[in-house]
Amino acid sequence: MKIGLAQINPIVGDLPGNVDKIIAWSQEASRQGADLVVFPELCVTGYPPLDLLDSPTFIDAVEAALDDLARGLPSEIGVIVGAPIRNPEKVGKRLFNAALLFEGGELRAVVRKRLLPTYDVFDEHRYFEAGTSSPVIDFRGLRLGLHVCEDMWNNQEQAEHFLYEDNPIDLLADKGVDLFVNISASPFSVGKHAQRNNVIGESCREHGVPFLLVNTVGANTEIIFDGDSRVHASDGHRIMCAPSFEEAMLFWDTEDTAARCSRTHTDIADLHDALILGLRDYYQKTGAFSNALVGLSGGIDSAVTCALAVAALGAENVTGITLPSRYSSGGSVSDSEALAANLGIAFHHVPIVPAVDAFEEMLADLFSGTEEGIAEENIQARARGMTLMAVSNKFGHLLLTTGNKSEMSVGYATLYGDMNGGLAVLSDVYKTQVYDLANYINEAAGQTLIPQSTIDKPPSAELRPDQKDADSLPPYDVLDDILRRYIEEHLEVEEIGLATGYPTALVLKILNMVDRSEYKRRQAPPGLRVSPKAFGMGRRLPIVMRWLRQRSDVALANEKAQ
Amino acid sequence: MKIGLAQINPIVGDLPGNVDKIIAWSQEASRQGADLVVFPELCVTGYPPLDLLDSPTFIDAVEAALDDLARGLPSEIGVIVGAPIRNPEKVGKRLFNAALLFEGGELRAVVRKRLLPTYDVFDEHRYFEAGTSSPVIDFRGLRLGLHVCEDMWNNQEQAEHFLYEDNPIDLLADKGVDLFVNISASPFSVGKHAQRNNVIGESCREHGVPFLLVNTVGANTEIIFDGDSRVHASDGHRIMCAPSFEEAMLFWDTEDTAARCSRTHTDIADLHDALILGLRDYYQKTGAFSNALVGLSGGIDSAVTCALAVAALGAENVTGITLPSRYSSGGSVSDSEALAANLGIAFHHVPIVPAVDAFEEMLADLFSGTEEGIAEENIQARARGMTLMAVSNKFGHLLLTTGNKSEMSVGYATLYGDMNGGLAVLSDVYKTQVYDLANYINEAAGQTLIPQSTIDKPPSAELRPDQKDADSLPPYDVLDDILRRYIEEHLEVEEIGLATGYPTALVLKILNMVDRSEYKRRQAPPGLRVSPKAFGMGRRLPIVMRWLRQRSDVALANEKAQ
Repeated sequence: MKIGLAQINPIVGDLPGNVDKIIAWSQEASRQGADLVVFPELCVTGYPPLDLLDSPTFIDAVEAALDDLARGLPSEIGVIVGAPIRNPEKVGKRLFNAALLFEGGELRAVVRKRLLPTYDVFDEHRYFEAGTSSPVIDFRGLRLGLHVCEDMWNNQEQAEHFLYEDNPIDLLADKGVDLFVNISASPFSVGKHAQRNNVIGESCREHGVPFLLVNTVGANTEIIFDGDSRVHASDGHRIMCAPSFEEAMLFWDTEDTAARCSRTHTDIADLHDALILGLRDYYQKTGAFSNALVGLSGGIDSAVTCALAVAALGAENVTGITLPSRYSSGGSVSDSEALAANLGIAFHHVPIVPAVDAFEEMLADLFSGTEEGIAEENIQARARGMTLMAVSNKFGHLLLTTGNKSEMSVGYATLYGDMNGGLAVLSDVYKTQVYDLANYINEAAGQTLIPQSTIDKPPSAELRPDQKDADSLPPYDVLDDILRRYIEEHLEVEEIGLATGYPTALVLKILNMVDRSEYKRRQAPPGLRVSPKAFGMGRRLPIVMRWLRQRSDVALANEKAQ
Repeated sequence: MKIGLAQINPIVGDLPGNVDKIIAWSQEASRQGADLVVFPELCVTGYPPLDLLDSPTFIDAVEAALDDLARGLPSEIGVIVGAPIRNPEKVGKRLFNAALLFEGGELRAVVRKRLLPTYDVFDEHRYFEAGTSSPVIDFRGLRLGLHVCEDMWNNQEQAEHFLYEDNPIDLLADKGVDLFVNISASPFSVGKHAQRNNVIGESCREHGVPFLLVNTVGANTEIIFDGDSRVHASDGHRIMCAPSFEEAMLFWDTEDTAARCSRTHTDIADLHDALILGLRDYYQKTGAFSNALVGLSGGIDSAVTCALAVAALGAENVTGITLPSRYSSGGSVSDSEALAANLGIAFHHVPIVPAVDAFEEMLADLFSGTEEGIAEENIQARARGMTLMAVSNKFGHLLLTTGNKSEMSVGYATLYGDMNGGLAVLSDVYKTQVYDLANYINEAAGQTLIPQSTIDKPPSAELRPDQKDADSLPPYDVLDDILRRYIEEHLEVEEIGLATGYPTALVLKILNMVDRSEYKRRQAPPGLRVSPKAFGMGRRLPIVMRWLRQRSDVALANEKAQ
């Protein structure tokens, strides 16, 4: 049997557009002689639809869209799609997250998702009731173990802890299936490709059953889906795999179990390609902008952001502006000019000195007798942010925020200043990774796009004379090591100190800086998620709180008394 | 038996402070001869602890705090508290949300919360496994039907839909209890007091059992808890009730069933008091600020925000600034001066003309040949926002954001301009409610705090000559009516049109304005939640999306063909 893997890029809420695409791709699959074509989880609505699911009108429209789909699909091919469907019971959440099999103009089978991820960026218990059965779907004699995304992942922490009681993979295998079919909206993070290889390979080997996964591709606001759809043979090896970060249709003949997919992944290429997809989809799917705009400081973050924007949108759709103050180094402007010339983008030069002078004049009375400090530094960053927003508003440009994850972690960023923008391209990329990206971009281009002097200069916000990041922060390799262990691995002061040998006082200082900067991140623009734990919707911490990693006075008093 | 209702205000994450408070209040209850004292849900951690619960170190500290509590509590009294406890099983979420009974230095009973709210601002499935039993707790011969918050609410939508399979109240009643005891962290919204009366009264009458509720009080970032703890008799009438919006300890003798609570509530007083508590707790619990700062425009939003700040913090802790531009009316400054004088606050006058001129000069070349528009209007709003942030940064003031819910709904606000601030006081208060608050504040004060001219003038952003809100928006009573039906009641274009008689085109325009402004709200400061559906963590909508309330082209084509 010939099966199509339709790795499509739906747009959240665009029911007509998504239905049209599913129909067109099904027609193509049918023309190519496929018996069955498989689309990703919630492809009718796009993922994540979030609280659109709370609107009965939206669900009515989804039902109408599914009727349209049934009527519009070619009749000779089976088509599996993902969509929210209503819970007919009077108890529980009002929807199920379902896989639907259409054939001959009719809905032939429904499988309800059982394991509902409710952690990190996932809120599925907010909307969905969990399915309670794992039916085997007979399609033209092939027994399909059809299930949805998370349903395949309850193997992952085997020895230590299972998040869910049930394991749909095992239940399906017990019933006897010829093929596992997983439809997913499984987000990218660096290393996810290898995780999928492991989990799927294990399931194949454990049960001696081949495995077909179709994952969605494309970005919706923060979340980037990499696709990475594939077929594994019953011995676990990958027979075929789709390209990551782009739409693709593969066809697999179920008789073909010998082929091997030779596609390899590197973390840096995946990171690079994910950011480009995230940036491009934000720009194109909103459809609200002409040109992306980047404030160029001469530093590495804005340079990498700008180069990614050019790769995503084309040089003709990117504008750079240099905004020097009286503290800007000469290199700030000349490196920005060189970058813009290398990339071939439009470039403007708008010194912010008049605005800074005006604010200082306006505030002279009120500030008289005070020492220069953060307030004055922030005036510069905000004068830049205001100028960029004025240009954005005037010409309809998408302002890209250039701050990296290291800075966002410790609050080394000015709210309403350099944090301004519609999309934060690097806010989940640590500073050390930004350097890796810069080198990768130059190497891949075979020429110097990002000036070497930008890569080589010591990082500085240039908000006061001779300021360097290293004055107030540890070296970035140390900082990033601490941050990654805290944010992504949920480790704490003592564990990090033990594992790294860094002084406890340093680790504690960094962790408290992260916690105390939550108020800034709450007002940050959405950022592209490329790690297992990005700031934004997947990391929810209170602003008003007094967790200081200490035990109670009572405990200390008791311990002293003992 | 004498029972204390300890309506306390914990601070999220402040384990030592919360434990100390629970011990001190228990000692007081014991001195007053109580046998049992009941504290709110998750009072050891504060509510909501959010992703602090993902930190094993935090849970270790909670366990240590509970040990401290057991040792520190007076031995002769029973004490019920709420805390997260570890799930001992190797399957499921790692925590339970539990009610714990301590007596004589030991943990005597544990009840796990069964119904885990996962909607609006609640994410309990993110952290907690659901309890599966409803044990009756025997305390000195009294059979307690102890349960946690949501466990009592599965009656609420009786006829139409139950959110949960189980009803712990019914299960406890079936086992035979002398008293229902509910510990809650149940947030305030206007009208919540009456809802509690109804739900609890019904449970009492249905089962002929009295009901004791202890709810937390105080605000943590967005969420305001009103307290409103009470005892109902078995016939449903309220025997006693705690004051709302402040800490309080009540004592109830279980023999006393005849008393009646005569406390009454009005929506406007509740709204007023809730905002004051929210503002005060944000300021005091962060402990990061000296003074609150309000930009005064002469309009009603900033005047009400400022008056609320004075009520919350005292006049000596509030500073007002007027920031006139060349488009500001004379009343803009004089009404602000009058307000500041009436309230007795510090007042500054910083015209923004130099900054606006500087930006226009800086951008003259780039903008030459374009028409004045949004970009220029926003420069003014942002020059104000920048000035306010400079003063905030310089003197450590908390900048209060003054925008109301009507404006935030339709995007009638400037990102990085008037949206700047640490806390949005009125972002869940519709414009029509802001007027009600202004009148209520003046009436309650017995004098004109908010100048009558501020209340009477037509609303205007004053960003271009003779601009009025009514030029681009329908009258606020119409707008607010549409917004409330859409945002809080989840109604859609047709239903709103039918119910109100407003033209469909107007309703559709407003709803689409709300949807399209999501990108602004994503970067808004946290706002105080006073309605059942506030912007912020309780309302999660995609920025990148194309839901336009339309069916697919396929459907339309099919319909035409039929």
